[in-house]
Amino acid sequence: MSDDPPRRRGRTARAKGRGGQALSQPPWRQPNLVYRPIEILDAEQLERIHLGSLQILEQFGIEILLDEARDIYRRAGATVGDDGLRVQLDRGLVQETIAKAPREFTLHARNPEHNVRMGGNAIAFCMVASAPNVSDLAGGRRTGNQKDFRDLLRLSQILNAVHMQGGYPVEPVDIHASVRHLECLRDCVTLTDKVFHAYSLGRDRNLDALEIVRIARGVSYEQLAEQPSLFTIINSNSPLRLDIPMLHGIIEMARHNQVVVVTPFTLAGAMAPVTLAGALAQQNAEALAGIVLTQLVRPGAPVVYGGFTSNVDMKSGAPAFGTPEYTQAAQISGQLARRYGLPFRSSNVNAANALDAQAAYESMMSLWGALLGGANMVMHAAGWMEGGLCASFEKAVLDADLLQMMSEYLRPPIVDEGTLAMDAIAEAGPGGHYFGAAHTQARYKTAFYAPLVSDWRNFESWREAGSPTAVERTHAIYRQLLDEYQPPPLDAGVREALDEFVAKRIAEGGVATDF
Amino acid sequence: MSDDPPRRRGRTARAKGRGGQALSQPPWRQPNLVYRPIEILDAEQLERIHLGSLQILEQFGIEILLDEARDIYRRAGATVGDDGLRVQLDRGLVQETIAKAPREFTLHARNPEHNVRMGGNAIAFCMVASAPNVSDLAGGRRTGNQKDFRDLLRLSQILNAVHMQGGYPVEPVDIHASVRHLECLRDCVTLTDKVFHAYSLGRDRNLDALEIVRIARGVSYEQLAEQPSLFTIINSNSPLRLDIPMLHGIIEMARHNQVVVVTPFTLAGAMAPVTLAGALAQQNAEALAGIVLTQLVRPGAPVVYGGFTSNVDMKSGAPAFGTPEYTQAAQISGQLARRYGLPFRSSNVNAANALDAQAAYESMMSLWGALLGGANMVMHAAGWMEGGLCASFEKAVLDADLLQMMSEYLRPPIVDEGTLAMDAIAEAGPGGHYFGAAHTQARYKTAFYAPLVSDWRNFESWREAGSPTAVERTHAIYRQLLDEYQPPPLDAGVREALDEFVAKRIAEGGVATDF
Repeated sequence: MSDDPPRRRGRTARAKGRGGQALSQPPWRQPNLVYRPIEILDAEQLERIHLGSLQILEQFGIEILLDEARDIYRRAGATVGDDGLRVQLDRGLVQETIAKAPREFTLHARNPEHNVRMGGNAIAFCMVASAPNVSDLAGGRRTGNQKDFRDLLRLSQILNAVHMQGGYPVEPVDIHASVRHLECLRDCVTLTDKVFHAYSLGRDRNLDALEIVRIARGVSYEQLAEQPSLFTIINSNSPLRLDIPMLHGIIEMARHNQVVVVTPFTLAGAMAPVTLAGALAQQNAEALAGIVLTQLVRPGAPVVYGGFTSNVDMKSGAPAFGTPEYTQAAQISGQLARRYGLPFRSSNVNAANALDAQAAYESMMSLWGALLGGANMVMHAAGWMEGGLCASFEKAVLDADLLQMMSEYLRPPIVDEGTLAMDAIAEAGPGGHYFGAAHTQARYKTAFYAPLVSDWRNFESWREAGSPTAVERTHAIYRQLLDEYQPPPLDAGVREALDEFVAKRIAEGGVATDF
Repeated sequence: MSDDPPRRRGRTARAKGRGGQALSQPPWRQPNLVYRPIEILDAEQLERIHLGSLQILEQFGIEILLDEARDIYRRAGATVGDDGLRVQLDRGLVQETIAKAPREFTLHARNPEHNVRMGGNAIAFCMVASAPNVSDLAGGRRTGNQKDFRDLLRLSQILNAVHMQGGYPVEPVDIHASVRHLECLRDCVTLTDKVFHAYSLGRDRNLDALEIVRIARGVSYEQLAEQPSLFTIINSNSPLRLDIPMLHGIIEMARHNQVVVVTPFTLAGAMAPVTLAGALAQQNAEALAGIVLTQLVRPGAPVVYGGFTSNVDMKSGAPAFGTPEYTQAAQISGQLARRYGLPFRSSNVNAANALDAQAAYESMMSLWGALLGGANMVMHAAGWMEGGLCASFEKAVLDADLLQMMSEYLRPPIVDEGTLAMDAIAEAGPGGHYFGAAHTQARYKTAFYAPLVSDWRNFESWREAGSPTAVERTHAIYRQLLDEYQPPPLDAGVREALDEFVAKRIAEGGVATDF
């Protein structure tokens, strides 16, 4: 399964050029949202959005394109409109059903040290997912392919700031669609030991993914249901439609008690009203419809409320991300999720074409939106560019630094006799300094977050070093990290069973495709 | 007073190259902090820092290098240590005295439309101040000079996101120090009509600044005292020392009822303890000492609590900004200021040497720290680079965009029948879109913030346009803004009186200098 060892050996020399030392990262750790989330809306305004959503589901309904799913809603008391597709859900049904979803749960990785707490005040950061293109400074921008797919998986494994996969970091289009999920999910198991994602692109792919994660964790289906280990992102086809593959995904994943993340993609001004209130009412209606289905399939199945409302540029129609409206939408979505007692998923997004100041400030708008919005799961947390059209190796490293900074920010300082430092202040006295103080000496090594990317040299030293900007520094770091990468240990029996299953399914032709 | 018209005419062509249209900015408007500020510490932890500060002032004291100031403290009941310099303030005196400071006030500009509310939930953004160097993409980095000083003033005037000056955006070292304040303050009055700042570099300079602002506003000293119109930043010489010029500044400005912003510069690990709790206890002690003096000089004089605690890089000793620790320190400083009922000053800082991703993410850490920390005044809000060693034209434009984004974020969306858009949602129906909807048509022009800098074109269009990064876009924007700049109207009589005063003081030799 290894690819081009010569080039990888070549990297070692570069790594040595940096001093030959392994890059230092804080350990894998889920941060906790310890501060009170920002509330953009007051209780009455939030209630109006909630009631608007209920009105949408009750009066307008949502198109449910899969017969099996419509039957499930109907048996629970929903009505189906004259067109045979629109399901109308009364507010009592919606509220009673979503109340069955758990507030918190654990997502199990094949390495238990990478199990992810989901809900409460825990936060999990996911790798970028689903980009059609990939880029790095040396190779430029290119179509997604298996080699870059694997390198991005390796990067996601070695970056401690990344808690779990988010999907395929880039779409490897050089693998045929009929067997792509088999190859890719095997790579997720072998190249990483973190939680991973199954795309809902038809029932067979969901079932293959469930079998692969079952093999990877060495458990029975019964145990798998007791220990959710796989998640899927469900996007509505906004406005107000759930497509067949997504409905298959909800049904199969919920049936197996695996995690469903229902995330409408509601761009205000395009597939949703041009007003945030309207776009969020629609987002909420679509999310609730999907969440209801999970609980009708299996009451208590783990489910996450996803928000992905942004706005378009009204001059060009282009989607925008990390805007002030996006940040507000993320935080209001968090308010809605908390209102329903559900874990909340947000994202780290931007629309920049280069890893420049725009990429950073739009990402920061998204991250502050997520983290002070009470997000439990941040999708695309590392590596997303261009509104999702490109996965960037350098951005993944930059984001890892941002995520670690935010994690540090989420740890309030200790205030006790030692940290208040009265003795040290008395000792330093007016006009003194603290460089050599015993208080400093005892603490300086771990006192502050040591960034991966920030360059704090003075201008003259920085210029002498060739004026490296952040993008160049992140390039060197990602190359070094890939050099340092070692595949996580994998039980030989598991590996054999996995290869056997994948080989069998490939021999069978994988899944039918439309291609 | 105009400089090099030929080059400025040259710019017009470039501006026309952008379509010849004036850049569109939201109007000058102070945003309000409408969300609940973040509380990093709980009430008990905050109280421990407060009590630590009182202990410092009571037991260790603070060095007050000016006899006149020590006498003021002494007459109020403070004791002076055996060395004749250390003033010790008991907690009763401190708390009783700072309680006299106003919670809110207005800073009066010569253009009343640019008056600044200070305190409450109002926020004011100040231009970068006091950088020794200046840079732009075309001219590179250079030592501060009068031409760039004036261009930065012009930029601060035309950028609506900038509410007031912060000092000299760059130090014009080509003007002799004895008369620099006279030339520079005249420029502040003639090139801008916004509130400006007087450096506290000796009593004579403070008095000249007071006379200049009095002339500019066309008022008497009595009226000036009723309408604070000038502010000064007071930095302690940390740890625990207030220098003579700063003490002169506090005394003269408070005596005239002008605004004193007391801002200790407490770098954790260097001039302050390596722990945030200790650094903040020291910051708070130094701030309270200065604030006490303002209220002893003139009870009720307008004063602002300034926080500027950051940390050093413990590997190199270099100051760092926009770190997680910086953000926490800013927000805890806000908690302290609110505890005392004082307006709070924070900053928009970073330590980057280039306008790259680092500059943006460190600035964002600072801005979120300030705005969710409840800052009423954000110094260096536009244009600061390199930890304050450089003012950047391009960064000023980038920051203006960030400030406007934050201002938009601070306006919660309207939730009413119109914005909830139930009719539009019913009309669009499943699988529809909102581009042509009447609901969209009626609102799309003003629905979303239109950024100055963000480039949302798709990758292909962006590459065809030459792959411009944010720094190149900000360069073109700042050049266009300087082309569009017009000096604000100034009464001919005021202008004459101003020139007369400056000419007289220059003829007198300005102020004595140490040079």
